[in-house]
Amino acid sequence: MLHRRIILNEDQIPTKWLNLIPYLKKPPAPYLDPSNGEPMSPEKMAVIFPMGLLQQEMSPDPWIDIPEEILEVLTTWRPTPLVRAYSLEQALETPAKIYYKNESVSPPGSHKPNTAVAQAYYNMKEGVARLTTETGAGQWGSALSYACNHFGLECRVYMVRISYEQKPYRKSMIHTWGAEIFPSPSDQTNAGRAILEKDPDTPGSLGIAISEAVEDAVMHDNTKYSLGSVLNHVLHHQTIIGLEAKKQFELVDDFPDIVVGCVGGGSNFAGLAFPFMVDKANGRDIQIIGSEPYACPTMTKGQLTYDFGDTAQMTPLIRMHTLGHDFIPPGIHAGGLRYHGVAPLISAAIEENLMEPRAIHQTEAFKAAITFARSEGIIPAPETSHAIAVVVQEAIKAREEGKEKTIVFNFSGHGHFDMASYDRFLAGDIEDYEYPMEKIQEALARLPKIGV
Amino acid sequence: MLHRRIILNEDQIPTKWLNLIPYLKKPPAPYLDPSNGEPMSPEKMAVIFPMGLLQQEMSPDPWIDIPEEILEVLTTWRPTPLVRAYSLEQALETPAKIYYKNESVSPPGSHKPNTAVAQAYYNMKEGVARLTTETGAGQWGSALSYACNHFGLECRVYMVRISYEQKPYRKSMIHTWGAEIFPSPSDQTNAGRAILEKDPDTPGSLGIAISEAVEDAVMHDNTKYSLGSVLNHVLHHQTIIGLEAKKQFELVDDFPDIVVGCVGGGSNFAGLAFPFMVDKANGRDIQIIGSEPYACPTMTKGQLTYDFGDTAQMTPLIRMHTLGHDFIPPGIHAGGLRYHGVAPLISAAIEENLMEPRAIHQTEAFKAAITFARSEGIIPAPETSHAIAVVVQEAIKAREEGKEKTIVFNFSGHGHFDMASYDRFLAGDIEDYEYPMEKIQEALARLPKIGV
Repeated sequence: MLHRRIILNEDQIPTKWLNLIPYLKKPPAPYLDPSNGEPMSPEKMAVIFPMGLLQQEMSPDPWIDIPEEILEVLTTWRPTPLVRAYSLEQALETPAKIYYKNESVSPPGSHKPNTAVAQAYYNMKEGVARLTTETGAGQWGSALSYACNHFGLECRVYMVRISYEQKPYRKSMIHTWGAEIFPSPSDQTNAGRAILEKDPDTPGSLGIAISEAVEDAVMHDNTKYSLGSVLNHVLHHQTIIGLEAKKQFELVDDFPDIVVGCVGGGSNFAGLAFPFMVDKANGRDIQIIGSEPYACPTMTKGQLTYDFGDTAQMTPLIRMHTLGHDFIPPGIHAGGLRYHGVAPLISAAIEENLMEPRAIHQTEAFKAAITFARSEGIIPAPETSHAIAVVVQEAIKAREEGKEKTIVFNFSGHGHFDMASYDRFLAGDIEDYEYPMEKIQEALARLPKIGV
Repeated sequence: MLHRRIILNEDQIPTKWLNLIPYLKKPPAPYLDPSNGEPMSPEKMAVIFPMGLLQQEMSPDPWIDIPEEILEVLTTWRPTPLVRAYSLEQALETPAKIYYKNESVSPPGSHKPNTAVAQAYYNMKEGVARLTTETGAGQWGSALSYACNHFGLECRVYMVRISYEQKPYRKSMIHTWGAEIFPSPSDQTNAGRAILEKDPDTPGSLGIAISEAVEDAVMHDNTKYSLGSVLNHVLHHQTIIGLEAKKQFELVDDFPDIVVGCVGGGSNFAGLAFPFMVDKANGRDIQIIGSEPYACPTMTKGQLTYDFGDTAQMTPLIRMHTLGHDFIPPGIHAGGLRYHGVAPLISAAIEENLMEPRAIHQTEAFKAAITFARSEGIIPAPETSHAIAVVVQEAIKAREEGKEKTIVFNFSGHGHFDMASYDRFLAGDIEDYEYPMEKIQEALARLPKIGV
């Protein structure tokens, strides 16, 4: 019998999150207050985040305890299987051993509830009654709706308009869990109305949706804002993925040579990769690859500098790779990867050569997705497909070089709500975009002049 | 730590299917040849089914070995978890212990690939190049597409038109796995064209779609027909569900007082229930409930007699509960439960008092689905929701009677492709239907006069 799935039981779930910061040579630069260029005080951040999460955001400790109440919800679907992709290996005729961590088994269908549950919990503990957020492809908005429903919080989601139209059933899922959802830009906020007035046909962007969600949180009582990626605490919460994977590799006496994840804000990538990055920082030879879309090439073509996290300039300044806070990427199908910036911890990892970014065209991603669906069975989300495309490249390279590499990637989400995109790909109706260098340069010219 | 999921490892997967027939007092009546009223010969059946499956169809043995090649595919998602629904218990304030067998974790999202993989395998072994089938909600068509893709067979699916329109992304999923799909009635067959001519706006029915798929198989070289429910061998293949569940109950030293499944043709119900029915036949006190929609009340209002399995009268005559082979049920959202007949083994179980049928209104099913989604997290298919509605009834009864019953049900499929139905329910736009008694009586008046 083939042993495809390496399974941990509930008692083997990690009970601490990993914080990468103590393993970096240089800690990430602080968030800056755009009004004066000084580091943001926790008190100012506390307008939109609960203190429990801000403490984690600033924590210098390598390990953070996971409260029992969070673990009890996570065991609804965790530990997740680490799967040996025998059928994909066969389809690619590769000597490489390919594994994937299947994060699509959560109720919302992705890794996102790993942090959504934690964020809803800390907000609930501090008496917050309502959370607002943005969502790209809808995975994050679904996850936060699910988590808020569990802990009895109200929830409102601003979903990037192009994704709202491409994936109508994310809305239904969010309603089923009792939350509200609006396409962004919306008429619900000043930021949304201003952008709609200038450009009524805008596809929207994560940067705009963040502006709307932050404004909504600031303007309403007992409401805080919740972010699905980018920030340190979000990435910490996701490390449970890689920590489980390490235990699972021990069970089969294997260890990856190559670790792959797709990067939008960076949270699913960090979740799998950071626990292995600690080994790399300690001198172990591991290749760690973050894949991003060619059409939104933040890591490969962005500038590493201070910029706003959102379009309307409501967030603190964050030092990260950025394409400019008002850059609006083409409407590719991987909505979760359409972000102008990236997590500061990802930028730090790139600076310290702990990982390498790689850009992928969306047709190559869809092609890899079909190969995966027709071998392993599961249909991946377009975001996840950008990771699979890199895995396919590396597996073919291993074949050409005759090397038996061990590759692991994060299967961050299923594509059940992205089937219209598959329709278009199968009909030959999906195009690639060149790097939109002119638009990027225009947006970069509008970068804030603070903290450079 | 709550132990929600009772997990078996791959080596604990059952290696034999259970055949209920030897445990019945009276074996089910034979299929009859409509041309002469005599029992169908295997040779005639072999026009549309491979001998490997016909042998299982006629087998008197209580156990049938599962070939290694089938087990290797099944371990892509099997054994499936048996889940203790702590959060649902809490939401219902019941002293009952509720468990569900989560069959939604397969790549197509339901129990259906348990038999699709087996059927594709036996056809492949006998050199068949192409399979045809019908599908209601799309779960079965997806599963057969998935299985045919795995074993390198071509596949064509006729999908009941109302479901094709309600669930457009099942089509995309089927295309992703490389199969063809047409809404039924279609212009691809004589049966389809004849019905379209009489009633161009028909919502279609499983009976019509079966006629089209059978005709297609008969008319094409090296093509056979595959059925997703009703027949003995299909039900045998599903018993792996209940056989796993029994092992899982042993691990937690529990055993069900009540077993629940929804019944369209009867295969997911049989899959969970038959292994427990053997204990009931041996005198153990277990209540086994099959739930069906009020709008298509085959078991509760049908007649137990010989009838065709399809509308165009192409199948053998089958002794079963039936509403008449040309009865077209209202377009309820549980498309998989819109069948005029039921498996002969289910009819036999009803006759021998081994189970009790119960009819459920679709709004009650959707209400139960929302309760489940907001407690356990996972969003159920509308078919599965008919089982959940019975579980809710029984859990509330246990509370009222102060009894700590153990209830298990088959979570046969997720609702990711049924979200438009949730939209309509949440908008208050779903109605119930009375028993369509007049239409049933008209259809029953047209029953064949053979074998009564």
